[in-house]
Amino acid sequence: MKPYLKEHPWSIIEEGFDQTKHEISESIFSIGNGHMGQRANFEETYTGASLQGSYMAGVYYPDKTRVGWWKNGYPEYFAKVLNATNWIGLKLVINGIILNLNTAKVSEFKRELNMKEGFLYRAFTATLENGDIVTVEATRFVSITMKEIGAIEYKVTPVNFDGEIEITSFLDGDIINSDANYDEKFWAEVNQTATDNKALVTVKTKKLDFYYTSKMQTFVDTDGVNIEPTTASTREKYADVVFHAPLKQGKTTAIYKYAANVTNRDHAHDVLEAVATAKLTDAVSIGFGALKSAQKDAWDKKWQDSDIVIEGDVSAQQGIRFNIFHMNQTYTGEDARLNIGPKGFTGEKYGGSTYWDTEAYCLPFYLATADQNISRNLLVYRHNHLEKAKENAQKLGFTKGALYPMVTMNGEESHNEWEITFEEIHRNGAIAYAIYDYVNYTGDKDYIGELGIEVLVEISRFWEERVHYVPRKDVYMMHGVTGPNEYDNNVNNNWYTNRIASWTLDYTLQSLRDLKETDPSLYQQWVEKLHLQPEETTKWEDIIDKMYYPVDENLGVFLQADNFLDKEIMKVEDLDSKHLPLNQNWSWDRILRSCFIKQADVLQGMHFLNHEYDLDTIKRNFDFYEPMTVHESSLSPCVHSILACQLGYQDKAYDMYLRTARLDLDNYNNDTEDGCHITSMAGTWMSVVQGFGGMKVIDHDLHLRPFIPGKWDSFSFKIVFRGARLNIHVTQQHIEVTNETAVDTAVKIFDETVHVGGNETVSVKTK
Amino acid sequence: MKPYLKEHPWSIIEEGFDQTKHEISESIFSIGNGHMGQRANFEETYTGASLQGSYMAGVYYPDKTRVGWWKNGYPEYFAKVLNATNWIGLKLVINGIILNLNTAKVSEFKRELNMKEGFLYRAFTATLENGDIVTVEATRFVSITMKEIGAIEYKVTPVNFDGEIEITSFLDGDIINSDANYDEKFWAEVNQTATDNKALVTVKTKKLDFYYTSKMQTFVDTDGVNIEPTTASTREKYADVVFHAPLKQGKTTAIYKYAANVTNRDHAHDVLEAVATAKLTDAVSIGFGALKSAQKDAWDKKWQDSDIVIEGDVSAQQGIRFNIFHMNQTYTGEDARLNIGPKGFTGEKYGGSTYWDTEAYCLPFYLATADQNISRNLLVYRHNHLEKAKENAQKLGFTKGALYPMVTMNGEESHNEWEITFEEIHRNGAIAYAIYDYVNYTGDKDYIGELGIEVLVEISRFWEERVHYVPRKDVYMMHGVTGPNEYDNNVNNNWYTNRIASWTLDYTLQSLRDLKETDPSLYQQWVEKLHLQPEETTKWEDIIDKMYYPVDENLGVFLQADNFLDKEIMKVEDLDSKHLPLNQNWSWDRILRSCFIKQADVLQGMHFLNHEYDLDTIKRNFDFYEPMTVHESSLSPCVHSILACQLGYQDKAYDMYLRTARLDLDNYNNDTEDGCHITSMAGTWMSVVQGFGGMKVIDHDLHLRPFIPGKWDSFSFKIVFRGARLNIHVTQQHIEVTNETAVDTAVKIFDETVHVGGNETVSVKTK
Repeated sequence: MKPYLKEHPWSIIEEGFDQTKHEISESIFSIGNGHMGQRANFEETYTGASLQGSYMAGVYYPDKTRVGWWKNGYPEYFAKVLNATNWIGLKLVINGIILNLNTAKVSEFKRELNMKEGFLYRAFTATLENGDIVTVEATRFVSITMKEIGAIEYKVTPVNFDGEIEITSFLDGDIINSDANYDEKFWAEVNQTATDNKALVTVKTKKLDFYYTSKMQTFVDTDGVNIEPTTASTREKYADVVFHAPLKQGKTTAIYKYAANVTNRDHAHDVLEAVATAKLTDAVSIGFGALKSAQKDAWDKKWQDSDIVIEGDVSAQQGIRFNIFHMNQTYTGEDARLNIGPKGFTGEKYGGSTYWDTEAYCLPFYLATADQNISRNLLVYRHNHLEKAKENAQKLGFTKGALYPMVTMNGEESHNEWEITFEEIHRNGAIAYAIYDYVNYTGDKDYIGELGIEVLVEISRFWEERVHYVPRKDVYMMHGVTGPNEYDNNVNNNWYTNRIASWTLDYTLQSLRDLKETDPSLYQQWVEKLHLQPEETTKWEDIIDKMYYPVDENLGVFLQADNFLDKEIMKVEDLDSKHLPLNQNWSWDRILRSCFIKQADVLQGMHFLNHEYDLDTIKRNFDFYEPMTVHESSLSPCVHSILACQLGYQDKAYDMYLRTARLDLDNYNNDTEDGCHITSMAGTWMSVVQGFGGMKVIDHDLHLRPFIPGKWDSFSFKIVFRGARLNIHVTQQHIEVTNETAVDTAVKIFDETVHVGGNETVSVKTK
Repeated sequence: MKPYLKEHPWSIIEEGFDQTKHEISESIFSIGNGHMGQRANFEETYTGASLQGSYMAGVYYPDKTRVGWWKNGYPEYFAKVLNATNWIGLKLVINGIILNLNTAKVSEFKRELNMKEGFLYRAFTATLENGDIVTVEATRFVSITMKEIGAIEYKVTPVNFDGEIEITSFLDGDIINSDANYDEKFWAEVNQTATDNKALVTVKTKKLDFYYTSKMQTFVDTDGVNIEPTTASTREKYADVVFHAPLKQGKTTAIYKYAANVTNRDHAHDVLEAVATAKLTDAVSIGFGALKSAQKDAWDKKWQDSDIVIEGDVSAQQGIRFNIFHMNQTYTGEDARLNIGPKGFTGEKYGGSTYWDTEAYCLPFYLATADQNISRNLLVYRHNHLEKAKENAQKLGFTKGALYPMVTMNGEESHNEWEITFEEIHRNGAIAYAIYDYVNYTGDKDYIGELGIEVLVEISRFWEERVHYVPRKDVYMMHGVTGPNEYDNNVNNNWYTNRIASWTLDYTLQSLRDLKETDPSLYQQWVEKLHLQPEETTKWEDIIDKMYYPVDENLGVFLQADNFLDKEIMKVEDLDSKHLPLNQNWSWDRILRSCFIKQADVLQGMHFLNHEYDLDTIKRNFDFYEPMTVHESSLSPCVHSILACQLGYQDKAYDMYLRTARLDLDNYNNDTEDGCHITSMAGTWMSVVQGFGGMKVIDHDLHLRPFIPGKWDSFSFKIVFRGARLNIHVTQQHIEVTNETAVDTAVKIFDETVHVGGNETVSVKTK
């Protein structure tokens, strides 16, 4: 697809209305605030192709699944984020004609996602079937200062006529998920009311008893004169209020619609309607202008912590800000029951569920750009699910330990392909690694003794039982796994999985030793609570000692799995491009048998455990695997970009960066209409900060090793590290570190320590 | 479950009505004639648990499927045999009370499947809610002389009262498959009529346009006096006629219901109703008694060709006859468009589709007990599907060759698990092997030049492209397959698959050479038609030469697949029995990683290619693999029984035989309510004939090497071999071969040639 969006450093802008791109734009221009999200659907009637989507964080449904032939251990449900009450709806009838951009002639169409201030703006001129011309300007946002509030300003101005407008402002809770397995409706009626300019719809999920109340209040004025509503009505799961206003040529009729969207995740279900009323009253009393202004201030704060500035490349600038904006819209970290779905609030694909993406790709972003509690809450999320993860392991026949689900909403596994669910167990390693990553970055060792050790021990117990000893070879092996490269399933001894398992055992043992040393009584409490036996830790040591790793001594590379070299070894560049992407052109059979790699596998290990491998080893493996990698997971290029930076492969690093930075804006994968690739956006951020910035934390020291792509004049990024917020500005000549806080700190730039006092700027030469 | 059926050499008998076993009995007592089948549902109303099932051979539906995440090459449909118009229904209202064995008090209940004469009989006494007592006798069969005719005799006698009976004899076409993926109805209304004592229902499948007309005529008499119907009525997909008859204590009211069931598979759809009328008229004019008598004669003929007699063990006798009876009910071989579903006409599981079961397990039965054309038609069935098999290979990305489907109704693949569909490609080998088996048994070499060579060449082309060359090792390998042992998926170099692939190439080359020699011009025609290139056959020779086979030299065994010995090697006997059957107690994850084998894999190869391996090799492999085999496929024990006979493991052979012989009668696998295990019944027959009988054909010679289980006084079996029908009777002392035809023949008994002249009996001593 040809790019159709304007380049701009702070906004995403679409000019001219192209119906064939509308669903893509609905994803890209989505707004969210961590509590709820809303695709960029039109407020007014639109009968063209559209995916109407309003989502409430944490409100999900266990949709029944059927697999080919059910086998023991298969989950029976796929938890799905719910498409919920449409609270933005306005039906406008102008002189008897419904305003509908599918039937009107549209000109001067503009859609803008203002990322600096956090709102969606739209303007257009519509010529109706009878020749009447109106201009419309619509602005909306979901508030990040009042999480449950959404607000819309919608202005209609007749250009060439006088007449009348009928405005129906409604709430519609009769919503179906586009991905419902059986076209089933998940919401049941509870209550709906409508009086004066207010209306309310309460619905409830047919399973799990999520209650959701949406309450709205609508104001209309024409040329500054307030208009009273004429009628209000309800039907099942629906409520509306209707206004009739005069239209005078050149005079604007303005509609202000406020909605409070509350669920029983946050409030008792029997007071939901009262809560909605109170929240709505607050919002209305503050008013649209003041809410919008507070929104701007709140976004200013977010940008202050997390902005990346790229000078000399507006397209790259826009791309990275788009990624940071959506990360911040999706997860705000205040609620440890929530997590980050691969599509955020921008679509239904992947069910809005939690994947290992969170630990492997998203955590570093929040670690470096937000308050420590936000990252900590991501760890607590998994701790909350520990019992479910233990049950999951039991379901598969393990006598102890925890296996976290591959896909989850509530801690239960909800993916139903055995080669993923049962076999892609490396996710357990990423969950352990995230604890290490958090402690390493923040220095918050206490987390281990508070909650972390429990998760580490239970994951270690799982690995202990999941490996098996092979007496003939005096080694431990792990059979029947799928590594991060999902293009090879049910392999034996996936190097990455064996490595991360062994690493987990090692880190757990080390954490136990540290705890014993620093807080013997807490250590003892955990030993008792976990019934930790000496035989267990001895066994873990034996496994670490005798873990089998497939290698090829001649090539000097780790083998992705047993027998990898028996495959037909080819490079992607030797494939005719008509075969790419493989997942759209090759049968699953052919993909599985090929050597081609969906996403970093051995290299994922070298990224996580970077400090354990010397550059030569990384280089040999990178040179061997990268040419076979098709990067058909949006999560792949960032890891390669970071390693390429380390290896001095500057062109490769920049290429890989480009593959993710504008993935959705340019709809590279031709699937943005399903929603944006939220979790891979964090990978883009990593490419800049860990890749180009060379940022790492080793032994409590913040390291930088920046390199600047030739095309850029400069780039800068912010990181929060142990109380200090640093702005690192890299030009072709200098690296400038500005300490935006009063906290004295030091960084190691190319391994040399540089002190950066409070509010100081220090500059060193670029290498 | 405790066995509940009476032992009897010729009948299956249930005495006493146990509702909890009714669905099992509905499967076991099924009747069929190759054209249609009918579960042993009650004719009268029954409100207890029941799977109503009437099936018409070859009438199927492409039921939409959904798999976890759809990948390229997955089939979108699962073809299913259709549960069709219920033509047996009678609603009986006696003095105002519906006769229903779920509510009446039942005594003297008896159900008998008369296998000698081919009918189902049922008798019972029912005490109705008002104290009225009636006795009922019902007999029904589907005719094997008039394939489209079913007939019922239903007699009601009041024991303790006079009164009235209302009889509604109906056809109900509003039928749903119990396994419909979306609870969808597959049949649409076409026409229904009812006049006098006749009624008709024509329905049509919503896809594929199968038309099915069922026409019935019903006669009622009380104490010999004919009763005229009172009303006839229809509604959508339903038609009935109603009779009112007086009931006189001790006097019998007899109902005769004839149905003609015709489909547009056999007749043009616009004449279906006329054909049904004609067939029905014929049947009625012949009458119930004469039809039943013809049925007996026809079954006599079948038993003459295929009976096995076991003396001294009624249970074994009943078991083997039950198996032979169902084989003959399921497939009669007159229609090359038909095949043998794993459940025959006894249930819906496995969709009534065709599996490799046909070639690997069923063909030998028909080869040895029926006319040669019947086996030939099984080969022609696959030849008919050759184009579809080529399309299937193309769908998976192959540039040439044919991959037959794992599961099919019309030649298209209709199974949707990748590890089966894409990977269990050994089925292609079995289809090639069946050609060899047929030619070897019958001596009909002409079949190769007529049709066989085309199938062989296309399968060989598939293998050519499916292997890949590994330069490092100078071998051809085959990755990503599932062998016959479905408890290990996506393995590399499954020994059996590599072996049968290489064997296919070899047999194809040999067939081409033979053809060239015997009929050069026909050979040339095929070369041209198939565009056979010299490079192709050269490549096949290279593959045969350099095929890689995993072996372990120390153990002297072939390895089921690469890395098999890296598994935790255990014996089934070392498992606590609580784990068995594994497929009900272990997660799929655990099953896959274990060494346990579902069904013969390496040993399947030694069974097929028995002549290529010496006894020592077979013994080493048997001793290694059999102890790891859980036989959780009903197709497994027979292969082991045959090899055990060969190795002189008499107890093991008998044990394995017992595991299949009464599988359904004793409901060993606790799933007979879904239908009977038809294809494994052929395996039972093989255990007796190829196992205990030691029957093999080598170089046109019929070999016997009998051994008799100690428990038996004698056993005998019939085989048809090149025009002669032989009855082989084995006692503890002697082997008697009786030639029941005038055709002179010879057999090799323990490798010694014994001439058996026409109508002669020859006896030799048992070894």
